[in-house]
Amino acid sequence: MAQHTQQLRERLAHIEDLNAAASVLEWDQQTMMPTRGAELRSEALGTLTRISHEMFIAAETGRLLEAATAELNGDAGSDDARLVKRVRRDWDKATRVPTELAAELARAASVGQEAWVAARRDDDFDAFKPHLEHNLELARRYAACLDEFEGPYDALLDDYQPRMTAAEISALFDQLKAELVPLIAETSARSDDGALLRERVPTEAQRRLVDEIVGMMGFDRTGWRLDDTVHPFATSFGPSDVRITTRWDEDYFPTALLGAMHECGHGLYEAGIATDLQRSPLGRVDSLGLHESQSRLWENMVGRGRAFSGVLAGRISEAFGGRFADLDPDALFRALNRVHPSLIRIEADEATYGLHIVLRFELEQELIDGRLSVAELPEAWNARMHDYLGIEVPSNAMGVLQDVHWSAGLIGYFPTYALGNMIAGQLWAQVHAEVPGLDDQIAAGELSGLRGWLGEKVHRHGARYTTEELLERVVGGPIAVEPFVAYLKTKLGDAYGVALT
Amino acid sequence: MAQHTQQLRERLAHIEDLNAAASVLEWDQQTMMPTRGAELRSEALGTLTRISHEMFIAAETGRLLEAATAELNGDAGSDDARLVKRVRRDWDKATRVPTELAAELARAASVGQEAWVAARRDDDFDAFKPHLEHNLELARRYAACLDEFEGPYDALLDDYQPRMTAAEISALFDQLKAELVPLIAETSARSDDGALLRERVPTEAQRRLVDEIVGMMGFDRTGWRLDDTVHPFATSFGPSDVRITTRWDEDYFPTALLGAMHECGHGLYEAGIATDLQRSPLGRVDSLGLHESQSRLWENMVGRGRAFSGVLAGRISEAFGGRFADLDPDALFRALNRVHPSLIRIEADEATYGLHIVLRFELEQELIDGRLSVAELPEAWNARMHDYLGIEVPSNAMGVLQDVHWSAGLIGYFPTYALGNMIAGQLWAQVHAEVPGLDDQIAAGELSGLRGWLGEKVHRHGARYTTEELLERVVGGPIAVEPFVAYLKTKLGDAYGVALT
Repeated sequence: MAQHTQQLRERLAHIEDLNAAASVLEWDQQTMMPTRGAELRSEALGTLTRISHEMFIAAETGRLLEAATAELNGDAGSDDARLVKRVRRDWDKATRVPTELAAELARAASVGQEAWVAARRDDDFDAFKPHLEHNLELARRYAACLDEFEGPYDALLDDYQPRMTAAEISALFDQLKAELVPLIAETSARSDDGALLRERVPTEAQRRLVDEIVGMMGFDRTGWRLDDTVHPFATSFGPSDVRITTRWDEDYFPTALLGAMHECGHGLYEAGIATDLQRSPLGRVDSLGLHESQSRLWENMVGRGRAFSGVLAGRISEAFGGRFADLDPDALFRALNRVHPSLIRIEADEATYGLHIVLRFELEQELIDGRLSVAELPEAWNARMHDYLGIEVPSNAMGVLQDVHWSAGLIGYFPTYALGNMIAGQLWAQVHAEVPGLDDQIAAGELSGLRGWLGEKVHRHGARYTTEELLERVVGGPIAVEPFVAYLKTKLGDAYGVALT
Repeated sequence: MAQHTQQLRERLAHIEDLNAAASVLEWDQQTMMPTRGAELRSEALGTLTRISHEMFIAAETGRLLEAATAELNGDAGSDDARLVKRVRRDWDKATRVPTELAAELARAASVGQEAWVAARRDDDFDAFKPHLEHNLELARRYAACLDEFEGPYDALLDDYQPRMTAAEISALFDQLKAELVPLIAETSARSDDGALLRERVPTEAQRRLVDEIVGMMGFDRTGWRLDDTVHPFATSFGPSDVRITTRWDEDYFPTALLGAMHECGHGLYEAGIATDLQRSPLGRVDSLGLHESQSRLWENMVGRGRAFSGVLAGRISEAFGGRFADLDPDALFRALNRVHPSLIRIEADEATYGLHIVLRFELEQELIDGRLSVAELPEAWNARMHDYLGIEVPSNAMGVLQDVHWSAGLIGYFPTYALGNMIAGQLWAQVHAEVPGLDDQIAAGELSGLRGWLGEKVHRHGARYTTEELLERVVGGPIAVEPFVAYLKTKLGDAYGVALT
């Protein structure tokens, strides 16, 4: 390997080591850390982030990028070329963000999350307000450093869904909303009441089920952990140390089951990245939309799917017993696909979920642009919940305070969830076209065919390709709404015995 | 605060943040990490350690030390002055060790520990021999960088017990040995057989007991964690995030109980350091001997003490029931204070423990000085086990291969364990002189008087004072053998109804 390219790779590996260390500290903060550890944790995370940022934006990184570019001799297709191109773009962005601002963003995110936990618990939006205002101000200052974007929101969005614009997402979301509103109207009226899922199930029985299902998906104790947390997430410190989390609700077991399948979907992506991309920016995932496609696919298309319902019903019967003995797969399938406007995004069904995202996408743009103040946010939230989903929000804890994202400074993140659904729809259609008998495999509890196809087509590449390049290679085009909507209509039509067009 | 002193403090705070991050990664590795995470964890830890070291030895640190010294204007008693003096000494040492040697020491420690695990498992000293020889050679090269010490062993010792010399420790150990040998002879003949402690107790019952006892000591869920591990340890990431660990043996419950009290003693030190010393080298503990005094005091003087035996017996009866219902405090006290020469240091009683340390202290000096070759070590070990403790060593696995320290390059570490016992003896005598009715408090399960005194006199100062200064302030003199021996004679005399003089 050329000398400067090798030096660049080594420098980037050390930066990835620091980022991995920060991820360990964040995982610990969410799952293990005693509450009083928060203040010093914020300091440690701030310092790690600052040093990583300083090493990345250093002139030496720029010099190595120039020298490595020269060594490429015009080559554009190799991993080296892809690495240099990707890092060059990130470096051009990062060098324009002052180190102090980057550290303050990290510190405020950590402090904000602790404040959010307390505010949600106490249903006290006022206590959270200054933290959100500070996060928004920092986000605006961050966006102001990057003048190549149309507006501040596009600059923020680029960190989560690179190269995509709010205008492009709006076009997709308009199309999605136009499909979802009538679909919700038609299906929610016929929907199962979901009472089956609200039978009380002790956490220990739920743990047995979840361990078994994620084990079928590919969770492996030698390289994975599953822990409890308030707001579930997945992270990894390399493909051989994947950490997923879930939370347990004894009155609604799908929270843990489908949450764990969701995070395990994310984890399979991280675990599947080729080991020769470890400790490199190519060992990441290009966009959150792409990452989310994997969690959505496993949670919704497998976990809530017709094909898997027999296996799942059997495993539930074994793990829970009692009222769940001899559970009818059809009844489970209908209950898991209840369409019902509700308050909490992470508990929403697949049809209404998109509208939760559209609402957040709109509100966060308005907050960043200054069209909406933080003081006005709860009222705006509640009004839009009424308009889009027809429901009243009884408390801020059940409304505007339900999600961690804004407390952690993650603005521009929400739309990637809905993009994930769209990409999952595209991949789901493609894998069915390429793997004969896939539904039969899934119905037999054999998930390795699906996992293998995703690993081969998507996971192993890490961030070697952009999201656009990867989708072009795998499904032959850009992000599209149609396959997701077609999948949803087919499934809900099947569940409720009605033709949805 | 003077400008350069402030800059120095900020630089040191960032270094402490990196060290805290490394401690989180190490804690996670010992308690949580899936096995396949080890390889990348080593990379991340290596990078954190290297960056922290580079920041510390940088010329900028030296420049700030000079400027801060000038700003002190001859002041020597303030925290600023103490900080500058301490850091100056560490910087003068660290800057004389070549980076290549530091890296090789770390690498050899890691490789050596792996080799040790296998060698102990296979009882194969020959396989371990080249690793120990390499570690000794590196230790000699390290010591050779530091020419202010009398000999290589003093240079190594300084990293664990700063400013103390082998000659000083030899004098203390000669005195200790002269006291312990007849004491062991007199007590081991009358000793309890300890059968009471070998009743089988399920881990869950042990957990209830341990939670209750460490709670009485001051463990607090808002700022502490207790987790399981193979090799118990305590660590902290600041005084409000203390992590202790223990291991569980269903056939010998004192392993977990006294191990947890030991680590909780360490944890109370870390938790008690004044918050204004956080993120500073003054927020550490000056010496391992001082740190160990706290673990030994809580484990042995409280946990195995007469005063606490009634409370402990009651709590054991409640937690374990069965054979332990109505447990007699006297029987428990005698069993916990069995004196019995044995092979394994970490299982040794308080009287024989000191001889295990004297043996190691003598052998490691002879190894470093070249008076003893590694090839001769097993025979020398076994001969001294016979001379000092009167027992035959059946295998190297139960003898010279039992401890991890030498495999990890920790040479000069062992004597701090016995120094900890001596300091604990001094503090135990002093707190009884200063706190009226202390034994009555302890007998009533009220441990806050003891904890408060230790916090006020010892913990809150962190590394503000040297070990010598602190002992001068608190007990009026340097490390001494007499109080420990007097304590032990009183306790064992009490346990076995004999006057020990």
